Formats: sequence, C-alpha cells, structure tokens
Amino acid sequence: MLRLSKSAQNMRTSEIRDLMSVAIDPDIISFAGGMPNQDLFPIAEVDEIYQHLPLKTKQEGFQYGPTGGYPPLLESLSRFLESKGLPVKDNQLIITTGSLQAINLIAKIMLDPGDVAITETPCFIGAISAFKSYQAELVGVPMDADGVIAGKLRQALDAYQERCKLVYLTPNFHNPAGTIYNRERRREVLTLLQGRNVILVEDDAYNDLYFDESDRDLTRPLKAMGTEPVPICYCGSFSKIFGPGMRLGWLLASKEIVRQCEVAKQSMDACSSTFTQMLANEFLVQDRLPEYLQHIRPIYKRRCERLLESLQKFMPAGVAWNRPKGGFYIWVKLPEGMDATEVLKKAIPLGAVFVVGKTFDPNGTANDHLRLSFCHMPEDKMEKGVQIIAAAIQAVQAGR
Amino acid sequence: MLRLSKSAQNMRTSEIRDLMSVAIDPDIISFAGGMPNQDLFPIAEVDEIYQHLPLKTKQEGFQYGPTGGYPPLLESLSRFLESKGLPVKDNQLIITTGSLQAINLIAKIMLDPGDVAITETPCFIGAISAFKSYQAELVGVPMDADGVIAGKLRQALDAYQERCKLVYLTPNFHNPAGTIYNRERRREVLTLLQGRNVILVEDDAYNDLYFDESDRDLTRPLKAMGTEPVPICYCGSFSKIFGPGMRLGWLLASKEIVRQCEVAKQSMDACSSTFTQMLANEFLVQDRLPEYLQHIRPIYKRRCERLLESLQKFMPAGVAWNRPKGGFYIWVKLPEGMDATEVLKKAIPLGAVFVVGKTFDPNGTANDHLRLSFCHMPEDKMEKGVQIIAAAIQAVQAGR
Repeated sequence: MLRLSKSAQNMRTSEIRDLMSVAIDPDIISFAGGMPNQDLFPIAEVDEIYQHLPLKTKQEGFQYGPTGGYPPLLESLSRFLESKGLPVKDNQLIITTGSLQAINLIAKIMLDPGDVAITETPCFIGAISAFKSYQAELVGVPMDADGVIAGKLRQALDAYQERCKLVYLTPNFHNPAGTIYNRERRREVLTLLQGRNVILVEDDAYNDLYFDESDRDLTRPLKAMGTEPVPICYCGSFSKIFGPGMRLGWLLASKEIVRQCEVAKQSMDACSSTFTQMLANEFLVQDRLPEYLQHIRPIYKRRCERLLESLQKFMPAGVAWNRPKGGFYIWVKLPEGMDATEVLKKAIPLGAVFVVGKTFDPNGTANDHLRLSFCHMPEDKMEKGVQIIAAAIQAVQAGR
Repeated sequence: MLRLSKSAQNMRTSEIRDLMSVAIDPDIISFAGGMPNQDLFPIAEVDEIYQHLPLKTKQEGFQYGPTGGYPPLLESLSRFLESKGLPVKDNQLIITTGSLQAINLIAKIMLDPGDVAITETPCFIGAISAFKSYQAELVGVPMDADGVIAGKLRQALDAYQERCKLVYLTPNFHNPAGTIYNRERRREVLTLLQGRNVILVEDDAYNDLYFDESDRDLTRPLKAMGTEPVPICYCGSFSKIFGPGMRLGWLLASKEIVRQCEVAKQSMDACSSTFTQMLANEFLVQDRLPEYLQHIRPIYKRRCERLLESLQKFMPAGVAWNRPKGGFYIWVKLPEGMDATEVLKKAIPLGAVFVVGKTFDPNGTANDHLRLSFCHMPEDKMEKGVQIIAAAIQAVQAGR
C-alpha cells in the first residue's frame, strides 16, 4: 500500500480535464475549455520567426537557461510590462512554466499546512489546487459586479489575521466570473490591505483581452497603482496572447520574493523551456504582439456578443448572467435552488458541455452557476449550444 | 517581514547556477555545466521537422495538452521505452517538465516533513533540492566503483524502516560519480529492497550515453529486470538526447503513482510544453534519434578520453579518479584532507571552474571531490583546463 504524503491526500482533481476529453468529440458543443481557439494562434508569425532565427539563437533555445528566465525575454518582457505602468525596475521578474507555476511557487514559499489563503468566490481552479496542494485552508470572499466585496474582504482579513499569509485576486476579466474591478473597488482593496502582514497575489492573465480600446485604462494593474500597501506578486501569462502550449508565464515581485521563488523553481523544473522562451522573445522584440492583439480582440468580442444574444434569446426566466468587457467567460447564475451538475447531466447527452460552478468554489460546494467560455467556440455553434443548455435547465426545472 | 513557509526556509540554493554564470566568460574554461555542448544539438534535424509540420499539428503544439502528456509523444515514447525492455504496458507514462519535475512530483506525493529519502552519496543536486524542498531528511549511502554499497544500503533501510518512504538511485552513468552499477550490484539492490514498504526512484537520464556498443547491455534499467520487489518509478529525460531547452522528461510507474503525480502536476504547471513535445515526438517518430545518438556517442567518448589523458599527465600524486563508460562526468578525489572549495578559489583566477563535491553531498558537507564535466567543453581546451586545476591543487598543497 502506497504511503502517500498528506499533501497528496489533500489534492483535488480538476474536473475540467475530464470535461475537456468529452469535448474532443466533434459533435459535442463545448463551452468548457478556457483556452484560445486553435484557429487564432499566431502560427504564420512563428513560422516566419523560426525561419529567420540565427543558428546561435537556436543553440540557446536548445540549451538550459538561467532559472530566472532567458535573458533576452526578461528584457523584452520588462519593456512590455513597463508599458503597462508596472514598476519593473523596483522589482524582479522571473519566467515561469505558465502563470500557474508562478502561483504555485508563491504558495510553496509562503504556505505551511493550516495557513490561510483568502481568495475570491468563485476562484480560478488552478489557484485553488495550488493552495490546497500545500495544505492551506481557503477562505473565499464573495464578489459583486464590481469586484470582491470590500467589507467582506475586511471581515475575512480580521477573522484570519494570524493565519492568513496571502490574498489572491484577479481584478481583470476574472476566471470564471468575467468581472472587471472598477476603480473605486481597486482603491478600497489596496487601502484595506494596508498594514496587514500579508502578500497580495494579483493574477492578471487576461490583462490584454479587453474588447474595447476605451476600456483599456480600466485594466491598469493594482501593481501599477503607485502605492503598494502590501508586497504585490503580479502574475501574467503568454497563454492567452501567444499560446498555452508554450507554457510560459511570469511573476513580477520584490527581489526577496522572486529570489525565494527562484530557489523553489530550481528544485521544480530548473528553468522553463528556453526554446519557447526564445520564440516568445522574438514575438515581443519584432513587435508582433500589438498587431496580433488587434486581430483577436474583435473576434473574442464578437463571440461574446453572440453568446450574450443567444442567452437573451433562449434562457428561461430566473437565469442571470454578467456582460463581460473582456476575457473569456460568462458566469451564469441558475434559478434558485438548481444544481449545475444536474444541468450538466442533461446537457451532455443533448450535445453540450460547460464547467459547473462548484469547480471554482474554494469550498468545492456552491454549485448554482455555470461557466460558459466563448473563447474556444466558433460563432455558428453558439446558438445551438445555448439552446441545448436552456433545454437542460428547463428539463431540470420540470423534474424530467 | 516576509513570513516564509518552513519549506522555503529549508530550501538550498544550487551553487551550480552561480558557477554557470562565471562560465559565461569565454576566457574561463568550464568543467562545471552538466549540459550537452551547443554544437551537438540536432538543430538541422529540427529545422527539417518544423518545415514539414502540418498546420493541424502546429495548432496542437500551441494548445494546452492533457496533463499526462501529448498523446502522440506518449505513444512514440512508449515504443522507445519498450525497445529497452521496460514494462510500459503494465505501467503508466507521464511527460514531465524535465526529469527533475518527475523527481519533484514523486517527492510531493510521497514525502511529509521528517520522512526519510535514502540516496547515494554523492547524489544529483536536483534530487537533493527536490527532497529537501518537502522537508525530507536525506540519508546518503556511499558508493564504490560498482554502485551503491549494498551492505550500507541495507543498514540504512534497517535504521530508517519506519520513516523511509523512498530510495533514489542512478544506476547508469551517475551524476556526479560517473559510475555504472554492475549486474551483481543491480541484483543485490533489488533483492534487499524486497518486502520493505518503500518505493525506488530510478533516475536514468543518461541511459543512452554509453560510449561503446558492447556496453549497451550493462545499461538495462532496474525497472526492466523483470522482478519488481518494490514499485519502481523510472525517470528519464530528453535533455541529453535532444535538448535541455525543451524541458521534457518522463516518469514510468504504476498507474496509482502516475495518477497521483498527474493530480500534483495539475496544480504545478498543468502540462509540459505541447510545442516542444510535438518536436520531440517527430524526432522519435521520424526515427532520427538512433542516428543522432550514433553521432554524439563517439564525440563524448573522445572528450572523456582526452580528459582522462590530461588528468593522467598533469594531476599530482594523491589525486584519483574513475574511468567512465558513458555519461558526462569524471569524479575526482582530492588528496587526503584537501577541500574542493579551496581548490576552486585558486582555479577561478587562473581561468577554470568545476563543481565542488559538497554540492552533491546529501548533508552538504563532504568536500573532498571535484566534478569535471567533459560534455560541454571542446577537446582543445581540456588540457589547458586540467593544467590549471592541477596547478590549483598544487598551490593548495603548498599552502600558497
């Protein structure tokens, strides 16, 4: 009999993976996966980049790199982050194997069993898994349409003052809630974290995915707001702006925190792929990102609008949802008392899947929401998919 | 003040990284890095592979893949491992971000603080860091020229019966010792692990790097020996046979162990780079690996011979070393009482670097050896490098 560690006993499988394998069936309409559609990847651009790479650069790409990151990418990424107003010079940057690894590294250096991590409710499943894998206790704080509810966050911070080591928030285009924090909420959150001995993990994986240029200012990171009442660990990702298969993310934080994360990463995977870092660096250096973003933003916007129209058209009374300004997700509230898993069970045989709400609940229980991703699905299938989910909801309502 | 986790407080920096940055200076002759020389990477082959990739395959490369690995690579790698006699069908395979992640995942699912991991002395620094990062206690067992000393291993297993969760061994071309276990030692080790409630982690990152075809049979993995008295977790790597910058390794183990590692990996980096997995898969499927290995083996053999000749020619009396049959390393024993760090301090200003013995000591103290890598250095610099190290040893001897 395997004598597993307490950590292994505490880990929780992500159900999303199982749903993604259901979604491989081409006849199933999937709102499940939180990944860019394959038709949207900048493949022609990378072909061109690869063709013109000097031999010396390719040799670097095949080789180990420093644990902190491929130096040319650290430089080009620094410039990119500085253009967002982020205080790169006063901090340190480390490249990670997806932004999930950035979250995992922070968890590793901060959390002992029994420590508390405060998150939003709902919360990105990857962060929940990472915190749980270090046997932390998760305390979720509810959100409204403008972000985490400040008064509730204060209550949680007061209640867990001793044991709380970190607060994890996603102010821009929250996964799964789709929310963007308004300016006031951002200020409130920063103010109330002041003078408390916690760090703030700011997950900004969707920063560049606003739909309208006029909303760009809203996406200004907390880390770029000039006051840092707590050490802010700013996490970002190439997954949504280049390709998740590259497995590249980053962490911008104080030198002390990054130094600790680097030591932890030395024992985890030594460095992230130099080969894909080399490609990402060229993508940035050749200034191909802005054009690529201008190409994908209206596509995601259109998909989102199409999904909203279909929801409006087909959802029965008692179902509610938000109107995202960017990102990948719509967070659908079911009629009072309805369980998302029941809806999913009806939807799968009819030919549609999504992720049930409890996946994103820090406690793994609240199940009155569905997450619908519009990033991955061709527009022409959306209406059909929503009709199926609406029918599934009606079937559950009718007790069929 | 940062309230770090106990794990972070327990982690140890690898000094190798610092030495590698010293080694960036082109005037420094470096025996430090355990990586293939950049001139040896199969770059022309990958250029050709990339040129002929269908769009659909590239799209897969940009996308998230299953946590367990890119399915085509799992298939081609299975065939490759089966050709080594490994019991792939009775086990499960998972692709990891370098073989270091495989070791880290096993540590994560097995080790609680205070648990014991038994290793060889000396031991791969990455494994030491991984085990320590889970607050395990390391118990080192000495090696002789034929592998870990069986009697000493038995003593350690008896002494730590309750707390010992795993044994970590590198039977083929040990890093840093350069040793290959002989057949008898392999049988002894397997026999004495029988009936004990531990798992065996077999690190076989150098399996393919024998110098002479006639030694191939000696490299047969423990996992392929037909009896599995303990669950064997077999770890391998693409770093030495394709490129470390791809960050790809693997773990072949029981379904139960791999399932647990997969859950842990979901919270760590979700999946390894699909892009580099796609390239590695084509490298295998197009059967380019055998030819590539035939190209690099004689080069490493020649470098090793050249290094041995130089050692013979220049090292003062009292210095001893092994004669490797493969791999990357020669493990040099200093004269009685001499400290490797003292030698390094003299060698750096003279223009040569290597890794000091204590880096590989599970207790971080024994410092009477140097690790010399011959993999990374052009032959024409070897003699000069050895002369410098010999001079440094003589200077320490003379108390200069």
